Amino acid sequence: MTKGSQYSHRLDLENGRVEMAHGSGGKAMAQLIDELFLQAFSNPWLDKMNDQACFSLPAGRVVMATDSHVISPLFFPGGDIGSLSVHGTVNDVAMSGAVPKYLSAGFILEEGFALSSLKQLVESMAHAAEAAGVAIVTGDTKVVERGKGDGCFITTTGVGVVPEGLNISGDQVAVGDKILVSGTLGDHGVAIMSLREGLSFETTIESDSQSLQDLVAAMVEVVPDISCMRDPTRGGLAATLNEIAQSAGVGMQIYEAQIPVKPQVSAACEFLGLDPLYVANEGKLIAFCPADQAEQLLAVMREHPKGRDAAIIGDVTEDSLKFVQMETTFGGKRMVDWINGEQLPRIC
Amino acid sequence: MTKGSQYSHRLDLENGRVEMAHGSGGKAMAQLIDELFLQAFSNPWLDKMNDQACFSLPAGRVVMATDSHVISPLFFPGGDIGSLSVHGTVNDVAMSGAVPKYLSAGFILEEGFALSSLKQLVESMAHAAEAAGVAIVTGDTKVVERGKGDGCFITTTGVGVVPEGLNISGDQVAVGDKILVSGTLGDHGVAIMSLREGLSFETTIESDSQSLQDLVAAMVEVVPDISCMRDPTRGGLAATLNEIAQSAGVGMQIYEAQIPVKPQVSAACEFLGLDPLYVANEGKLIAFCPADQAEQLLAVMREHPKGRDAAIIGDVTEDSLKFVQMETTFGGKRMVDWINGEQLPRIC
Repeated sequence: MTKGSQYSHRLDLENGRVEMAHGSGGKAMAQLIDELFLQAFSNPWLDKMNDQACFSLPAGRVVMATDSHVISPLFFPGGDIGSLSVHGTVNDVAMSGAVPKYLSAGFILEEGFALSSLKQLVESMAHAAEAAGVAIVTGDTKVVERGKGDGCFITTTGVGVVPEGLNISGDQVAVGDKILVSGTLGDHGVAIMSLREGLSFETTIESDSQSLQDLVAAMVEVVPDISCMRDPTRGGLAATLNEIAQSAGVGMQIYEAQIPVKPQVSAACEFLGLDPLYVANEGKLIAFCPADQAEQLLAVMREHPKGRDAAIIGDVTEDSLKFVQMETTFGGKRMVDWINGEQLPRIC
Repeated sequence: MTKGSQYSHRLDLENGRVEMAHGSGGKAMAQLIDELFLQAFSNPWLDKMNDQACFSLPAGRVVMATDSHVISPLFFPGGDIGSLSVHGTVNDVAMSGAVPKYLSAGFILEEGFALSSLKQLVESMAHAAEAAGVAIVTGDTKVVERGKGDGCFITTTGVGVVPEGLNISGDQVAVGDKILVSGTLGDHGVAIMSLREGLSFETTIESDSQSLQDLVAAMVEVVPDISCMRDPTRGGLAATLNEIAQSAGVGMQIYEAQIPVKPQVSAACEFLGLDPLYVANEGKLIAFCPADQAEQLLAVMREHPKGRDAAIIGDVTEDSLKFVQMETTFGGKRMVDWINGEQLPRIC
């Protein structure tokens, strides 16, 4: 891919830094694209080097999702903003039951950002994309002055195709549905907050950042009647359940004792003053399905490596007030309201 | 769409400011989406409030393009970052000959940004989308701390469908093709630079920011054999021609006397030390087509209100060095090289 001959010397990916010229549309930008982005992402669509990618899709329903990523710090245990930017958007596409296919990536870089870090992030994106079975087919790079950005922001957009027969959407959730979760909650948010606060525990808490398209494919194959899936990112389980309760016009009842949380995450949450219900996840999903298919769905999830800790955690109830309530481990009841204020800024 | 009842009071869109909580996934973010984004962009796909949009596409070739927008200042004569973020991506999609259909929008907001400005930008996006015949079907909002962003960055991604029979791509350009431009060059970049430098001329120079999907539709209907189209944004005509010369493995010869530039843009360029060939445009396109169809294509372009000043400006030549050369108005020849350094930072 590299047309090395047209540049006077190669980009210094070890000691170089992002300069304003890398976003100006001239030769420096072309070189950054040639020697970094095309090297890492190479695929037949991107390699055409048009300002857009062209691909064929079968007739039918197409899904599109986008996420801007501004996580701080950029590198963390279990991932970095590069892999996260792929996982986040792949998961948003997959939550509709769709098979994610193509991604775009828009970079907003701060002048002075180390090219070696950018290279690491771009390679991490490439690996994450390969693992998720998607191609990064088009992109854009902009540079802002020092102090007008924060190293690297990445906005990805994904496109996928919905298999016939699925109708998975927030408004499909019905009274009587069971609520399932694919694994332990709070890992991502607690990993980031521990890092920011400089906490160390006996074992490092790692982000759960991962793509879920393969788990989803296994789930919809066996239980195509899934009403809704959602990945509980910012705002955690609490925000996700409240959003769906609003859009479906239902209430929800969850059971604290059934909600999987790792002991060290639980301990860190206590230390940090966080509630795992409100903490972001980046590799878990919530699913709703008719009660009579819940056990079957749970079995499929548990068979999959990304759903080993799956659990049925609650029921959809009739409630004109659309409240989400939780039966605590002590047998009491509490409201699971949306958080009002900022809990975890820049967590994704 | 507004579910006003669930918030204690309405968002203060007159005097309020962006807070970290607006990006945290809780109630404040839901309210911003409900009372601002959904109000402005409302359409059946977005209104479903899933984390992804689902729509039907006919079988065939689909095009995807993305652009991150970081222009400074956010408001300028002839447009703002909102309308620009729609035009930029619609045009990238349209340059393949595709009909743009759906857009996503990712916002990265700086803490403290005025909600009144955000409202203005969002409404401007909505108008631009309506004029371009596209729907903004999904989105994302992130907030970064004061001093870690610059008011508002917007990344849009567009999806469109390519009509049967078109094959418009940089690598289709062939020796002998004519090069056409749809109108005057340099308006956008000069408008922004004049504003930044606090220059005032007898008449205000306005950005040419506009969507070109209707001009493109008229062009491909009459001359489906167009080899390539490109909108000469960052880096201007010079960067665009050099990029295409590289990817098609050809040379180019253009004629200065044929290149349309407004007299006041030309004067401002001289004053600012800019060369209109290198200045960004946001509402113009370059087209390549077989020589025997160039006059017909020119006629179609001139009939269209967005192509009134169209001109044939050059020829594709055989050149193993892939040089772009220009015959000057004085009859001399000069190389039109890529710019190396930063010319106009944050122009889009």
